[in-house]
Amino acid sequence: MTQPPGRPDPAGITTIGCVGIGTIGGGWAAYFLARGYDVRAWDPSPDAADRVARLIDAAWPALTELGLAEGASPGRISVYADLEEALDGVGFVQESAPEVLPMKQELLARIDAATAPETIIASSTSGYSMTEMAVAAARPERLVVGHPFNPPYLIPLVEVVGGERTAPEAVQWAADWYEHIGKSVITMDQEVPGFIANRLQEALWREALHMIENGEATVEQIDRSITDGPGLRWPVHGPMLTFHLAGGEGGMAHMLDHFGPSLKSPWTRLEAPELTSQLRDSVVAGCDSEAGSRSVADLVAERDSAIIAIRKAIEQLRQGRR
Amino acid sequence: MTQPPGRPDPAGITTIGCVGIGTIGGGWAAYFLARGYDVRAWDPSPDAADRVARLIDAAWPALTELGLAEGASPGRISVYADLEEALDGVGFVQESAPEVLPMKQELLARIDAATAPETIIASSTSGYSMTEMAVAAARPERLVVGHPFNPPYLIPLVEVVGGERTAPEAVQWAADWYEHIGKSVITMDQEVPGFIANRLQEALWREALHMIENGEATVEQIDRSITDGPGLRWPVHGPMLTFHLAGGEGGMAHMLDHFGPSLKSPWTRLEAPELTSQLRDSVVAGCDSEAGSRSVADLVAERDSAIIAIRKAIEQLRQGRR
Repeated sequence: MTQPPGRPDPAGITTIGCVGIGTIGGGWAAYFLARGYDVRAWDPSPDAADRVARLIDAAWPALTELGLAEGASPGRISVYADLEEALDGVGFVQESAPEVLPMKQELLARIDAATAPETIIASSTSGYSMTEMAVAAARPERLVVGHPFNPPYLIPLVEVVGGERTAPEAVQWAADWYEHIGKSVITMDQEVPGFIANRLQEALWREALHMIENGEATVEQIDRSITDGPGLRWPVHGPMLTFHLAGGEGGMAHMLDHFGPSLKSPWTRLEAPELTSQLRDSVVAGCDSEAGSRSVADLVAERDSAIIAIRKAIEQLRQGRR
Repeated sequence: MTQPPGRPDPAGITTIGCVGIGTIGGGWAAYFLARGYDVRAWDPSPDAADRVARLIDAAWPALTELGLAEGASPGRISVYADLEEALDGVGFVQESAPEVLPMKQELLARIDAATAPETIIASSTSGYSMTEMAVAAARPERLVVGHPFNPPYLIPLVEVVGGERTAPEAVQWAADWYEHIGKSVITMDQEVPGFIANRLQEALWREALHMIENGEATVEQIDRSITDGPGLRWPVHGPMLTFHLAGGEGGMAHMLDHFGPSLKSPWTRLEAPELTSQLRDSVVAGCDSEAGSRSVADLVAERDSAIIAIRKAIEQLRQGRR
């Protein structure tokens, strides 16, 4: 492998290449524009330019409300018919092509060939590992996964992970870059199929499909069981700290020691892991570290304020709909 | 079975019995007080009265912000040493004892013996079916599960289900009652272990434990993957309508037809069901019915406003913490 060339300073980047501008790629484009970048885009579909313009128009009020960077404009996007022309002079590339492996492999190789060697190229894939996507690229060391969540212009999370041939410095650069543009980054040090968030939401989604199939719940009941139930807690603390609070003043340690046996009860089709003392201790230590100086009472107060604000926001929305 | 006696009019009830006033039962007590009821409570632990007073004090600002009923007061609770005395004259009973089956069985029988036969008795259980809990009660027809979510004074959801010997009219009465006091009710027509919401959150929790055990993610990464990712969408539309939007303008039908094959990809340890055309059609029909007159564009606008409001609320909270 050649030595990695000096990567660009994220603060010096002005132009971004977006390859594929459907729902996800177009959402990325809207986000980059709101952060004040020029976007050069390519998409083979004949109505791509119109569709992305509509998507950006629809997203712009939300982006404006969250705060635009100086000089940000929805008009600073150009859509090109030629991939190589689109990538001319870009400082970063976000690829968001359909989830078709041979297409991703070919596109990443072409993007690799068309861009300066110091440029980092990220894929929005939710389904493939960079190890399998990078096979045709000449410089796989600068190819990373930067997995967003729909809509990429509003959901902060980006999961960053490399492939077997990705340079660790490239993964680090991508994490720094996404943080620089205001994203919440989780850097993974190994390729896990589905990364982290999709594994979790897929487990929930699969259980929901089983319940619908067996007549145990309707689609509407499943949605309401989340929107009016645990879904109100998850944006505040996530699933782990939420259960930390279910343990009362004893926190996660009490929760696991008290409810550990019912961990095995047949509440879902997913089998539970053995609650070894090692697993118990890592979960407890992880919660303590995440809670930091916040006591259980602090976390309860925090949760309550957030749930009230979330409920009020959603109530307003429902009233506006009536 | 005797004929069901005439049930009380929910609007005429003034006094509620709370059996067990720990985190869940105390949370129920706070909610009933905020809705203007008198609460008569029983709990065998010697410091129960002090603990519940602290819990109610901590919850009262939140309840005040959400709006108190006329005459509501945190002082309208009495804690009794004697169960039968506590239940004198109550119009509804919420049992929230620890999740220990023989204890639940004995308590429900005693509550049944101590209350007027028309009174409905609900259990907060998350782990047992009413069929197994009601075995010692003389009048099981009026025993129902009314499963809340922590904290019961803020999370609207209550799952209502009867046991094999519960009268359908009693289940219906409980659903009406909880709606009368402002809860969001899901009435289930069969006993499903874990009901609906816990099945879903358990699937997610178990996948999380597996990931921690295998070093695929830390506790903090799991929480952030939800708080900064899909957790921001779930309070708006729930998991099903969220995926309806992932299909773009084609909605859930497009989503399932397009991503159906990847349903089987190894993203979680929970096996996916076969995506039969029947399952596909029920999911699509359920989403269409839930969306009602709202187009995908309407839902996108709705989601975006809600996510912005939720992000702003949580950002304020984080700033307050710094």
